[in-house]
Amino acid sequence: MIASYALDIATAGQGDVRDLTREVAGLLADSRLTAGLVTVFVTGSTAGITTIEFEPGVVADLARAFEAIAPRDAHYDHHARWGDDNGSSHVRAAMLGSSITLPFAGGQLALGTWQQVVLVEFDTRARHRQVMVQVMGE
Amino acid sequence: MIASYALDIATAGQGDVRDLTREVAGLLADSRLTAGLVTVFVTGSTAGITTIEFEPGVVADLARAFEAIAPRDAHYDHHARWGDDNGSSHVRAAMLGSSITLPFAGGQLALGTWQQVVLVEFDTRARHRQVMVQVMGE
Amino acid sequence: MIASYALDIATAGQGDVRDLTREVAGLLADSRLTAGLVTVFVTGSTAGITTIEFEPGVVADLARAFEAIAPRDAHYDHHARWGDDNGSSHVRAAMLGSSITLPFAGGQLALGTWQQVVLVEFDTRARHRQVMVQVMGE
Repeated sequence: MIASYALDIATAGQGDVRDLTREVAGLLADSRLTAGLVTVFVTGSTAGITTIEFEPGVVADLARAFEAIAPRDAHYDHHARWGDDNGSSHVRAAMLGSSITLPFAGGQLALGTWQQVVLVEFDTRARHRQVMVQVMGE
Repeated sequence: MIASYALDIATAGQGDVRDLTREVAGLLADSRLTAGLVTVFVTGSTAGITTIEFEPGVVADLARAFEAIAPRDAHYDHHARWGDDNGSSHVRAAMLGSSITLPFAGGQLALGTWQQVVLVEFDTRARHRQVMVQVMGE
Repeated sequence: MIASYALDIATAGQGDVRDLTREVAGLLADSRLTAGLVTVFVTGSTAGITTIEFEPGVVADLARAFEAIAPRDAHYDHHARWGDDNGSSHVRAAMLGSSITLPFAGGQLALGTWQQVVLVEFDTRARHRQVMVQVMGE
């Protein structure tokens, strides 16, 4: 059995992190499935999905680490080609990944208490993100 | 068909890497499924799952690279908020990811000879990790 | 229902990125499944799979970022042990990950217009890569 859902998430631009855990758990409950996989996927190449302890300290620390890896104001070939300013967004998103797959059993996601499913916005402007949540199981 | 299993893995703290390949292959055999997906997921926000060639050189090289990206002794907002010392652990784990999904066919995982499924401990102290292994297929 | 396919992809060595989107979409069509998950997995520990906007600027930017994280000419313990020169390849591949899982519905992959599925070669020499594409669904 497969159930597919779409979320529309507004973000505030680079560094914004949105906790999707409640929405994902609610969709899992809607599916009435008890064991299987939940896949969370963001459309687009300048955002990512991961799990973190969702608190402002970790969110700031993660943004600082990505700024060190792919600084927003560095040179990017992508800028020269397209007139964009979001080369840092593309690099960060490629490294983080656009989806995660989480098992569930007994109707419960296998997340820890301080482990949330999050959308990480890397683009340099506010965006509306389409996030697909797919539940597959029995 | 879905089979869910839990592993309890003791780790020695930041930089410790545990090869789970034999356990995962054994659980796949237990499931008696021949084709499908195996998902390996670690509960908690300071550890990750990936594949590497599991030999001490690569393990040391990977630890060194993560130390450059998110140094253990750098400033982390997470420390100020919670009195913790594991901000580097949270950043590294968010980047690596908490799960992987591997296809199998003919009852065999699609891994290379020098490609192992590993748990990477990022926390600053020894931990007992709960790893969920879920097999879905036919 | 599960369908498993293998792709053989020739690469030009470190920094080469191959767009697999058309092949993956074609295999999804072959499977005749309309909703489910596609998993794309590369065998070996010196290559990875992700999604990017596949254009030469982003490809160059991503290579530059990985060179900063794990420089090709740095010291790697892996070299001393094995006489290899691809320690940077192992570190980069472990960080990026060897597989991605993408949902599909209505027979269509949930990719954006400028979001392609790519194989990223990290090894220091040209390789032939075995990529497994598995479609699971209904």
